[in-house]
Amino acid sequence: MITRMSKLFVRTLRDDPADAEIPSHRFLVRAGYIRRVAPGVYAWLPLGLRVLSRVEAIVREEMDAIGAQEVRLPVLLPREPYETTGRWTEYGPNLFRLVDRRGADMLLGPTHEEMFTLMVKDLYSSYKDLPVTLYQIQNKYRDEARPRAGVLRGREFVMKDSYSFDVDDEGLDASYLRHRGAYIRIFDRLGLDYVIVRANAGAMGGSASEEFLAVAENGEDTFVRSPGGYAANVEAVAVPAPEPVPCEDAPAARVVDTPDVPTIDTLVELLNSAHPRPDRPWTAADTLKNVVFMTVTPDGTREPVVIGLPGDRAVDPKRLAVAVQPAEVDDFTDEDFERYPQLVKGYIGPARDGAQFLGAEAPAGVRYLLDPRVVPGTSWATGANERFRHVIGLVAGRDFIADGVGDVAEIREGDPAPDGSGPLSLARGVEMGHIFQLGRKYAEALGLKVLDRNGRLVTVTMGSYGIGVTRAVGMIAEAACDEKGLCWPREVAPFQVQVLATGRGAEIIDRATGIAEALDAAGVPVLLDDRKASPGVKFNDAELLGMPTLVVVGRGLADGVVELRDRASGSRREVGADEAVEQVLAVVRGG
Amino acid sequence: MITRMSKLFVRTLRDDPADAEIPSHRFLVRAGYIRRVAPGVYAWLPLGLRVLSRVEAIVREEMDAIGAQEVRLPVLLPREPYETTGRWTEYGPNLFRLVDRRGADMLLGPTHEEMFTLMVKDLYSSYKDLPVTLYQIQNKYRDEARPRAGVLRGREFVMKDSYSFDVDDEGLDASYLRHRGAYIRIFDRLGLDYVIVRANAGAMGGSASEEFLAVAENGEDTFVRSPGGYAANVEAVAVPAPEPVPCEDAPAARVVDTPDVPTIDTLVELLNSAHPRPDRPWTAADTLKNVVFMTVTPDGTREPVVIGLPGDRAVDPKRLAVAVQPAEVDDFTDEDFERYPQLVKGYIGPARDGAQFLGAEAPAGVRYLLDPRVVPGTSWATGANERFRHVIGLVAGRDFIADGVGDVAEIREGDPAPDGSGPLSLARGVEMGHIFQLGRKYAEALGLKVLDRNGRLVTVTMGSYGIGVTRAVGMIAEAACDEKGLCWPREVAPFQVQVLATGRGAEIIDRATGIAEALDAAGVPVLLDDRKASPGVKFNDAELLGMPTLVVVGRGLADGVVELRDRASGSRREVGADEAVEQVLAVVRGG
Repeated sequence: MITRMSKLFVRTLRDDPADAEIPSHRFLVRAGYIRRVAPGVYAWLPLGLRVLSRVEAIVREEMDAIGAQEVRLPVLLPREPYETTGRWTEYGPNLFRLVDRRGADMLLGPTHEEMFTLMVKDLYSSYKDLPVTLYQIQNKYRDEARPRAGVLRGREFVMKDSYSFDVDDEGLDASYLRHRGAYIRIFDRLGLDYVIVRANAGAMGGSASEEFLAVAENGEDTFVRSPGGYAANVEAVAVPAPEPVPCEDAPAARVVDTPDVPTIDTLVELLNSAHPRPDRPWTAADTLKNVVFMTVTPDGTREPVVIGLPGDRAVDPKRLAVAVQPAEVDDFTDEDFERYPQLVKGYIGPARDGAQFLGAEAPAGVRYLLDPRVVPGTSWATGANERFRHVIGLVAGRDFIADGVGDVAEIREGDPAPDGSGPLSLARGVEMGHIFQLGRKYAEALGLKVLDRNGRLVTVTMGSYGIGVTRAVGMIAEAACDEKGLCWPREVAPFQVQVLATGRGAEIIDRATGIAEALDAAGVPVLLDDRKASPGVKFNDAELLGMPTLVVVGRGLADGVVELRDRASGSRREVGADEAVEQVLAVVRGG
Repeated sequence: MITRMSKLFVRTLRDDPADAEIPSHRFLVRAGYIRRVAPGVYAWLPLGLRVLSRVEAIVREEMDAIGAQEVRLPVLLPREPYETTGRWTEYGPNLFRLVDRRGADMLLGPTHEEMFTLMVKDLYSSYKDLPVTLYQIQNKYRDEARPRAGVLRGREFVMKDSYSFDVDDEGLDASYLRHRGAYIRIFDRLGLDYVIVRANAGAMGGSASEEFLAVAENGEDTFVRSPGGYAANVEAVAVPAPEPVPCEDAPAARVVDTPDVPTIDTLVELLNSAHPRPDRPWTAADTLKNVVFMTVTPDGTREPVVIGLPGDRAVDPKRLAVAVQPAEVDDFTDEDFERYPQLVKGYIGPARDGAQFLGAEAPAGVRYLLDPRVVPGTSWATGANERFRHVIGLVAGRDFIADGVGDVAEIREGDPAPDGSGPLSLARGVEMGHIFQLGRKYAEALGLKVLDRNGRLVTVTMGSYGIGVTRAVGMIAEAACDEKGLCWPREVAPFQVQVLATGRGAEIIDRATGIAEALDAAGVPVLLDDRKASPGVKFNDAELLGMPTLVVVGRGLADGVVELRDRASGSRREVGADEAVEQVLAVVRGG
């Protein structure tokens, strides 16, 4: 059955939606693929649903091919299992919570580790049952603080999530690699330009973890690559600590007056003029910047954290966010400074709870973390915890220590790769998939054990794997559109061909319908623009809608020809009207 | 790819789940098709999901065939549109409500009239755009007071809901009939024994309305049929009022002492002995029973209602529930009787707010409704609103009137059909589908208007149509199972064939695998029981799982034969091992 534009539930819009920041969002709305219903919540109109269903089908095929078994768990879930693993609290405001008519706490599933763990526990009891991999394609819910970019970051979205269960680490490795292979096939078929990078496991816990990022200039994620093959999300880069520096000969630290130095640059300038060093001038890299912020744990507790890092580096907010998980970061306000008078705004120095530094009282209840580059023996100019004064020659390990490492400084173009594989280059991307080895965290918390070969109970080890399905639709649109509209790759296009009848004569409509019906009979999904509209309107709409091949039946028909257009390249050629179907079939099938 | 029992994520259970009241629930859980996650919330395991997907596919095919267009609206919805139509309140505790991180009220969609109305309003503006019919297959949410019977009445369930939009009543009639036809084809294909009955539109508003009920002894719905073709849910039976009776000659009513008559029967006995009638004895049908209960409106307001009906009939709780919608019914407690002293427990008589009856003070704030059979002129024995006293010869219309009609008495076997088509017979069923003409209620509330042929704005008229998809799986299971387990019809079976290797020899396993692979290659979905288990375990499991055809490869193989069994009929026959595939294909394809 051919689909006719005159009947299709779609209306194209001339104007961009007010909230659309990026092309895919703009075009998906304007072309009538999606409609916003609430912040981060979208309706899928017929054209959009066709693309979404194609993507789902590809994901399903590749998951089935690695022996994963499809199930469907509920969206509406009881609190208890998430309470047991701590995620009821850890998810904080990102979790949609509700209370049912009997007063029971429930949630909308953000991801289903708990439920799959319990389901396997319910059914399985022996190593002979394993390995097993289960998956579902299903709505997920996260109450994002900033839903954005249409379906790229929604609060209700479709995700393929799968979970592997193995009796030992080797099994987990194998399950992980099978998923990795399936993901490569999926994203290849979706026609996305993507990279596989090391990832931070985030709130999920676990160890080995990789992300599939679609390369995109406006992507939310930043990743690094080295010539030697290192690739990681900046969130996951662990900066290696250099070797300690000998400091036996280092002079004692001394406090100096530093009035009127509102910035690192003015401090460096003052040091070079008032306290010049004989060997080399002060630079920002010689200063130790101490940044204070507030962490808010999921239960609402606010704790100040100071991070010391070289003055020539900024804190990367996303690396910081990852480092403090499951807590969230909040600003350290002027009221907070009043509450912690030991933290002198603009002059914060290293100081650790319970320790003494240069006579300053260590601020109680403040955690102090140090950038990995601040190794023992390095000497720094830094705040003296006193207004208008800094200290110079302060030696790490000798004059101050930290509560731990705070590896949250920005990663910069040219920084060395952690594995020594050369200088890093930076680019941006959007997370399309995430695979990781959860290990035994959830199985332990929920008691998923099986009998091993020797009759002993062992805890099962798990992997967790996700693909953002609605997000994939957004990213395919984003990657393939041009200034005129969408350009769908064949694998996911809602229709392979759009036939445009651009003229009034009955002959034109009849011929266009005939071509559409012949293509349909040959199994090619085809959209026929049979509307009473001008050729200009039809051309513009066809370019906005983005079917891969356009067949224009118009004035040329008088000379026995119709036009074939390739939407992506814009190339066009005339073919005899009688051979149009054959030619289109060759294009569609030839790829 | 054949599916092997040794790998399939399924475990059969020997024992019935504690909460399972009906066979389908018991078997779906025991056979590993579904698992309960929370009250009324189920997980679909691989076998269950295969059936569910088959049902979804059939529904999709038939909806597409009538030109309905598939979309997918969100589950998580904003409050405003439901506030506008009043359903935010009317749904009462049946609606899952939640508050997002910004404090916005949201809900989980119980059904989507509002959202579809707004979507059509968003896209369409002219009569030329209509008619259009849209549908989705999607999770729905209702916080049922009593989720029961597994997937038959859940709190999270899959529904196909569709909505038609027409410019005039003739269009709506046509859309309605198209749906009716599609539903007939769907339920025929699903192999269900069903009836189409008049229905009450319930909370949806609207007028013409029919239900598709699967006939089932343990069904929640009761329906009636007449020899002349009348069929209705008892909830929708409108009992016609008889003609008024002349009462000019009726004697005046009089109050009589009636101590010690706790029941209608004892009252009738006392009347016959103390106040006999010359023409005929008193019967229960001569008494007017006044039943009091409390209605609770969605905003929580409690209002007493008294219903007067012939003493030989009981109130039907479901007809009552429908009659008071959107209010709910609650018991009238002893405390309530204290609060309304005019309502004398056991002696309630007709009395209407603001009216006088026999000197009794009419109870303020009590609504009084009368059964349609209590027509003007009929004479009754009834409570005198005074302890130990009744009144006889009380004439409707002369001595008392009502605030309205209360058509909530039970319908009985043999009652006349409202349309005069003969005596009614009663049976029970489960609602599988519901189609109804909503009319303009939602379009009016949400401002969905289009320009008509004459350039005037007219309100669109709508139909709303639902099928319980997860419920259909439950009902198919319920209709087709026997004492041993499930018996799937071919159209929805998870696998067409189950091949059992019942023996230890490598030859048996090899031959069973070969047959399974040949069937698979021929496009027949096949499940191979390759487990190391006894023949008894395999037979029992196969009968529990319910694939239509079983192929048993066992001891007979030594003589070159295998056994084919038909699960539903239990018939079995031996065929040559070499011709097994051909024979099975004939069975599967021949139907």
